[in-house]
Amino acid sequence: MRRIAVALVHYPVLDAEGRHVTTAITNLDVHDLSRSCRSYGVESYYLVHPIVAQRQLVDRITDHWRNGSSGKRIPDRVEALSRVRTVPSLEEAMTAHGNGEKPEMWVTAARTLGSSIGYAEARARANAADDARPLVIVFGTGWGLAREVVDAADATIAPIRAAADTGYNHLSVRAACAITLDRLFGEV
Amino acid sequence: MRRIAVALVHYPVLDAEGRHVTTAITNLDVHDLSRSCRSYGVESYYLVHPIVAQRQLVDRITDHWRNGSSGKRIPDRVEALSRVRTVPSLEEAMTAHGNGEKPEMWVTAARTLGSSIGYAEARARANAADDARPLVIVFGTGWGLAREVVDAADATIAPIRAAADTGYNHLSVRAACAITLDRLFGEV
Repeated sequence: MRRIAVALVHYPVLDAEGRHVTTAITNLDVHDLSRSCRSYGVESYYLVHPIVAQRQLVDRITDHWRNGSSGKRIPDRVEALSRVRTVPSLEEAMTAHGNGEKPEMWVTAARTLGSSIGYAEARARANAADDARPLVIVFGTGWGLAREVVDAADATIAPIRAAADTGYNHLSVRAACAITLDRLFGEV
Repeated sequence: MRRIAVALVHYPVLDAEGRHVTTAITNLDVHDLSRSCRSYGVESYYLVHPIVAQRQLVDRITDHWRNGSSGKRIPDRVEALSRVRTVPSLEEAMTAHGNGEKPEMWVTAARTLGSSIGYAEARARANAADDARPLVIVFGTGWGLAREVVDAADATIAPIRAAADTGYNHLSVRAACAITLDRLFGEV
């Protein structure tokens, strides 16, 4: 499998009125996405936040699990959280994951944003040969990724929907990331 | 589609040593699972907790969203949370969802528990004709559902795994429920 990373972006994202905002770190985003990443073989999980105190909060959470009593109680949580990295910008996540190469970048969205690739194509491309370019799959918090992030991406994955027309796809980012990784890397 | 419910059980579930315990309500379980249920057309989401104060906590959360300022700010959250029901036992969830009929009950587990049905079969059966018996899909908190719940079920769905052998499937219940509903009711 090619080298895969997930990035969770807290800036630049949108609020309900479409303005650029910075969202706060949610503790369970750190846990849930790292566990999903570890389960599906994703190498690194980048929490992207421009504010140093928020990155330190994430580092304190992961340190607590790596070195505190909780990690002894739930060792599998330590293994998942060891994939967490904090970075101030998406560019730094791309550079870190690329490790000298320029990674491919895919964005996810609950809304249809211009042309997008379906999950069958995304799955085939995500499971390309080991020497394919590294891939970063980007998720937004708040009301979704800012337009400039979407425009800078190599591909947008089509929104997650039910087979039936339920008229609703407001999933949490914890649910959306889990479903995306399962659609790309799950057992069939 | 037949009438589907999700039940999230806080008792009887297991702790790390396999003892019976009661777990605490997690706020984001209320939100995330209700949003996943609404997205995939699940009719009701039962939070099963034997302690009245814990059920009241859930009711206060849903009341806050239905009647408070947050619901005006994020109307789609109101729609999801309107599917939440609190019940003291799984039996009461079955009775409520059955509405006079005896529902079918499926359990989910991260471990292999005796014979289980794969997702292809589960998807076919979950999407049976509208007049098929109602179905309740049960998730456990803590270290998973107690043995007597598993034994009482009509079927156990096979554990969620990656296509690659990652040696790890410790997903959060928020992730596991999202993936299960997507595998049963997601667009393909």
